[in-house]
This record gives sequence, C-alpha cells and structure tokens, in this order.
Amino acid sequence: MITLTSDFGFQDPYVAEMKGVILAVNSNATLIDITHEIEKFNVRMAAFTLASVAPYFPNGTVHLAVVDPGVGTKRRAILIQTKTGFFVGPDNGILVLGAQSQGIEHVYQLTNSKYMLSNVTSTFHGRDIFAPAAAYLDKGVKPSNFGSEITDLVKPRFAKVEKTNKSLIGEVIHIDGFGNIITNICEKDIVDSSIKAIKVQLPRTSLKIILGKTYAQAKPEEAIALIGSHGFLEIALNQNSAAAKFHVRTGDKITAVAS
Amino acid sequence: MITLTSDFGFQDPYVAEMKGVILAVNSNATLIDITHEIEKFNVRMAAFTLASVAPYFPNGTVHLAVVDPGVGTKRRAILIQTKTGFFVGPDNGILVLGAQSQGIEHVYQLTNSKYMLSNVTSTFHGRDIFAPAAAYLDKGVKPSNFGSEITDLVKPRFAKVEKTNKSLIGEVIHIDGFGNIITNICEKDIVDSSIKAIKVQLPRTSLKIILGKTYAQAKPEEAIALIGSHGFLEIALNQNSAAAKFHVRTGDKITAVAS
Amino acid sequence: MITLTSDFGFQDPYVAEMKGVILAVNSNATLIDITHEIEKFNVRMAAFTLASVAPYFPNGTVHLAVVDPGVGTKRRAILIQTKTGFFVGPDNGILVLGAQSQGIEHVYQLTNSKYMLSNVTSTFHGRDIFAPAAAYLDKGVKPSNFGSEITDLVKPRFAKVEKTNKSLIGEVIHIDGFGNIITNICEKDIVDSSIKAIKVQLPRTSLKIILGKTYAQAKPEEAIALIGSHGFLEIALNQNSAAAKFHVRTGDKITAVAS
Repeated sequence: MITLTSDFGFQDPYVAEMKGVILAVNSNATLIDITHEIEKFNVRMAAFTLASVAPYFPNGTVHLAVVDPGVGTKRRAILIQTKTGFFVGPDNGILVLGAQSQGIEHVYQLTNSKYMLSNVTSTFHGRDIFAPAAAYLDKGVKPSNFGSEITDLVKPRFAKVEKTNKSLIGEVIHIDGFGNIITNICEKDIVDSSIKAIKVQLPRTSLKIILGKTYAQAKPEEAIALIGSHGFLEIALNQNSAAAKFHVRTGDKITAVAS
Repeated sequence: MITLTSDFGFQDPYVAEMKGVILAVNSNATLIDITHEIEKFNVRMAAFTLASVAPYFPNGTVHLAVVDPGVGTKRRAILIQTKTGFFVGPDNGILVLGAQSQGIEHVYQLTNSKYMLSNVTSTFHGRDIFAPAAAYLDKGVKPSNFGSEITDLVKPRFAKVEKTNKSLIGEVIHIDGFGNIITNICEKDIVDSSIKAIKVQLPRTSLKIILGKTYAQAKPEEAIALIGSHGFLEIALNQNSAAAKFHVRTGDKITAVAS
Repeated sequence: MITLTSDFGFQDPYVAEMKGVILAVNSNATLIDITHEIEKFNVRMAAFTLASVAPYFPNGTVHLAVVDPGVGTKRRAILIQTKTGFFVGPDNGILVLGAQSQGIEHVYQLTNSKYMLSNVTSTFHGRDIFAPAAAYLDKGVKPSNFGSEITDLVKPRFAKVEKTNKSLIGEVIHIDGFGNIITNICEKDIVDSSIKAIKVQLPRTSLKIILGKTYAQAKPEEAIALIGSHGFLEIALNQNSAAAKFHVRTGDKITAVAS
C-alpha cells in the first residue's frame, strides 16, 4: 500500500504520471491519495497532514510525499524506515513529523539509479525518483539497497507552545476546509493548565469562550473551543468559518488564558 | 466495495484518515470516491448525489456518506440494509433517497463499540464510527451485530412537483459543474403533460424554449430544455453556464407551461 | 487497468457513475483518475494531458477520455487499439495524440449495443457508452467486437513550431498549477538552434533569460527558461507563477531568439 501527498493539484498530469510509474513497476500496488492540494511549496502543511494521517494506515504502508521547491538542487532524496512503515520524499522536513511518531529506525539516501526512471529530469523527481522508489519498496526491495544510510535529517520548524502560570501561547498550524482554526496547543497542555472556559487572544480579536465538545453545541454566531479530532485545541463556529469571521491565518499566534 | 461521499473536501486529511481506518480493518477493500465536494453541511445535496450514483454500482456495495453537522450530538449513527446493498452514515436523511430506491429492508443503529475506533472523538465520527462500520460490513460482519434495529428514520425534505392543467411547478435541485439547471420535474411529468415547447418561469427570467435532446442542438446563447441523464428536466446552454446566465440557484422555483 | 480523463469535475456525480458502471461489469478493474479538471469542452487540453501521461502506464492499459461537447450528435464513439494499449472516447481528437505516440494499429467505431448500458441517454455517453466499452475491453472482449473498423479519425489541431535562422516561434500549450508556462517548443528545437540564453517575446512582455535546469536556480522574481519534465521549453519563476506575472494564457504565441 502506497499513499501519495503533494502540492501538484488534481488538474495537471503530474499525479497521474507518478501513479503510472508506480503501477508499471508493481501493477498490484494499492494507491491512496492523502491530498494533492497542499499549498504550493508549503512543506510544513504537508508535514502536518502526513503526521495526522499516517497513524490510521496499516503497518507496512509506504508514504510518498512530494512538496519539493528544491527539486534538482543538492537537497537529498531519502527514504525513512520506521518501526511500522516507510516514508519516501525529499529531505526538507516533509517526512519527519510522521516518521518520528512511528519511531525512526533508519534513513537512506536514494542514490541507486537502478530504482529510478532511466531518464531523470531536473524538475520532476516525484515521477523520476520518488515514485519508483516507493513502488520498489512496496514490492519488497530492501531499504538498504536504495543508497547509503544517513543520520542528519533536515527537520521542519514548528513553534513550541509557551507555557506560563496562567496562559498558553501557541500557533495556528492549520485552517481546515470548514474554517476551523487548529492550533498546536494539545489536549495535555489544556488538562495540565486545568482551563475550562478560556479567553483567546487572536491577532485581530479577543474572545471569551467555553471549552466544549461538539460543533453543534455552539450557539449561532458564537465561537467554541474544543479539542479536535487530532488532539489539538481548535476554535470553531457552528456551521460557519471561524477563520473567516476572525480573520485568522496559518502561522498566527494564539494565546489561551483561563477566563 | 465501499463508496465514500462527504463535504470534507480534498485538501484536509479527513478523507484519507477514513480510508486508512477502512484499510487497516480490511486491506483488500476497493474504495471509490463519489465526491467530497458536497457543499458544507448540505445534506440534501449529498442525498441527491448518492441517489444518482448508487444504481450504477454492483450489488453488495457499501455506501458510506458523511455530511454531519450534528456530529457528537444525540443524532444517531445508522446502517441501512437494502435489497441490494448497504448505506452507512448519520441519521439525518443523507442515506434515505438512495436506500429507498433499492428497497429498505432493515435499519440498525451503530452502537456496538467493537466496530468503532477505540478512541471515539466528539467531532469526527466519519473516521471513528462510520468508516470502521463500513469496513467491517464490507468484510462480512452481519448488519444486526452493529446495534439494535430501528424504524423511525429521519427523512430529507424535497419539494414535490405541483401539477395543474397547464403547468408544472418544480424546484431546482442541483446546478452541475457545467452550469446546467437540474430540476425535480421528471420525464414522466413532462410526458403526462404532453409539453413539447415550454415556457419556463425562472426567478429572474422567463424563457420560451424547445424541449430537445442534446446540448449541441441549442443555438449559441440560446437555452434548451431536455431530459438529463438522471431523468430530470434540465435547462442548459450549449457550452455555457445556464445557471450563471439566468442567475439561478439551487432551491429556486421553476414553472414549466406549454408554450 | 483503466485510466479516466474528463472535464466533469469532482463535485458532480458523473465520474462516480462511470466508475460504478465499469465496476458493475468488472469488479476487479483498477481505476486511476488522470484528471477530471480539464477545462470544460477543452479537447486540446485533454489531448495534451493524455499524451503526457500515457507513456508512464503499463502495457495493456485502457485510457478512457471524455470531453464531449458533441454528445448525442453524429460525432462517432471510437476505440483505438495501439501497439501497447487502448484509447476509448469520442472521435473529436481527444485520443489521437496519446494513441499516435504508441503507434495506432486499428480504430473501431463503438456501435455494438451489447457493450452499452441498456438505456443510452443523449447527454451522457461517458456513462452509457464509453465506460462500459472500457470495462469490457479491460475484461478481454476483442476490439473488433465493438463495431466496424474506420480509418478517418478527427485530428486535434496543434500549432507547429516555426523555425527561422535566428528564432523559434511556438505556442503556449499549457499553464500548469504552479503557473509554469509550457510551450510546444521541444528540446530538439532548442538544441538544433544552439540557443543558450534566450530572449523570449511574450504577448505582453519581452524577457532576456538564461536557459537553466532547475526552478530553484532562478533568482527571486527573475524568470528562468528550462526544458520541463515532458521535454518542452518552459518559462518559470522560482516559487511563483510566471503566467500570472507575465499575463500569459494558453494559445499565446511565444518567440525565442538567441540573445
């Protein structure tokens, strides 16, 4: 089983070319799209998405992820072997969050041209290097056959939550399609601080809201805070976009204090 | 075989998490996306889509549909067994149109935690309850094992066509991606009324148009009425959006009279 | 294995209906979406996409493509058998580029109603004629069983590159999701002309740029020319949309001269 994550979109032929390459190596591969609508060049968004999704896939799954602004430069192509699966993509941080949560065992550079297309372009390694690597890996080729082991992975930068006596200062890591504002403040942070109702300082607004459980629990037009389905603090409206209403963007600071 | 319908969009990790959960239960499941671009919270649109598509799938298909504004509240999670297949989702009307056309045999509430994720959140039952239910059902678990039988389904509300001597008053049920205006007036309504050329009263326009057979038959910039591929009266332009030109939206009234 | 290409979009039920029809004929078919976001009615864009993708798929793949403004008119439904695979769709040029590059062996009209849905509408041959044809073909039905052989295919119109002593005049054939401007000037044209740095005359701008290898090689805000992953001359910006910056559209003329 191979999952695919990229910023290629669904309109261009790029994703289908990767799938063709995989199926030409291994016509029995099961291919699952995570998303191809990562914001162009947004490695952090892809890393967050992959880390959210990977825990739900069966052991042995190969996660192929390509958001690759440095394609054709010296950035390395890598394969990470974890305790329960594999991650294939550029060495720019995209794979690390998801791989770390499974426990990283080995990292190999992809340099063996036997497992690449015969004609490697300088603009599309997703098709020419990463897709065949994922296909051969899924087919049973040993990870160490792809190239030499390395240890100095590029890490993605995510802000850490700052904790004081009375407040948690986090960051908006994702705005989802419903307009829910997802932060990097996790359930444990909230529990430890024994916050019940919170005052949220957003960049352009200050809100005093309850910490609830369901979207439907919020009154019309009133914001609610809850622990979302990935275990992070989320600010939401009932059937409306909290991000649009409060003019919040990914990367914005968010401060939660007991109200 | 399992189909998936939702309002989750393709950018967020939600759809892929549902697929991961299904494949972790049953790695041989065939997964087919109906669409994940249902308008947010539009249960009627999802019900219409699912009812359009379901007749074309093989017997035994499990249709999983999640448009779920009431997630985490008292609305029930259900499974409908029909004469030829299965429908899984929230009890808010989303499943009923599709299921009725196959002949409903039994409806069960999904309460058996054996067929849920071990950690059920209050915001994402698509992943935590519905996806595993669909996977176990597809794997052969008996419908009655999921919970107790119920009989009082929530029905979606669709307007009925009003018929008078000379006119049919219907409703716009869908605007498709081509801008075709799809109504709830069906072929039989038209045949019974022996209408050939019709005068259509739209909210912001009145049109006198022929009842044709193909889009290409319409002259440039001229509207045509035809029976679309699902058997409903449709107003269309040749290679242009009728909905944009005539400012028509889903839910608008439409009156057809013999011209 | 069956690939699907269309202008149906992912929101409407049309693509899923085609897949249901295929799976009802052959529940073991592997279905791969190329794209369903071809611009509405843009046969040339679909032809270009299909030709880009087809070489990467395994032998025997059935490529089903439906951009069909003439649905229900006298335009023919066809199946092309090539040296390595099959193409199914309307006879409007959509299949020809991809099929030619594999070597066309036979073309058959799809007229045998045994391999159509029992109820063929006049507005959706993708579902009623092309999908079942692809499914039966994938299942092993002989191409000649679908209808009589024909030889007069409709060809899509693409401009040819004009070559003079000092310049190449080509056309923009595609703007991809990254805003890269892809032309019909191919690697050989450039090599033959021994151009290194080029002056590009776009409709609304003139640029003097280097011919490079990678997107990342371009300085911020500076354009770069390179041979893209399909072997065509491309004008790009590093992590930005060249098409938006230079106001370029598909179909625009582009002139390259040695600078």
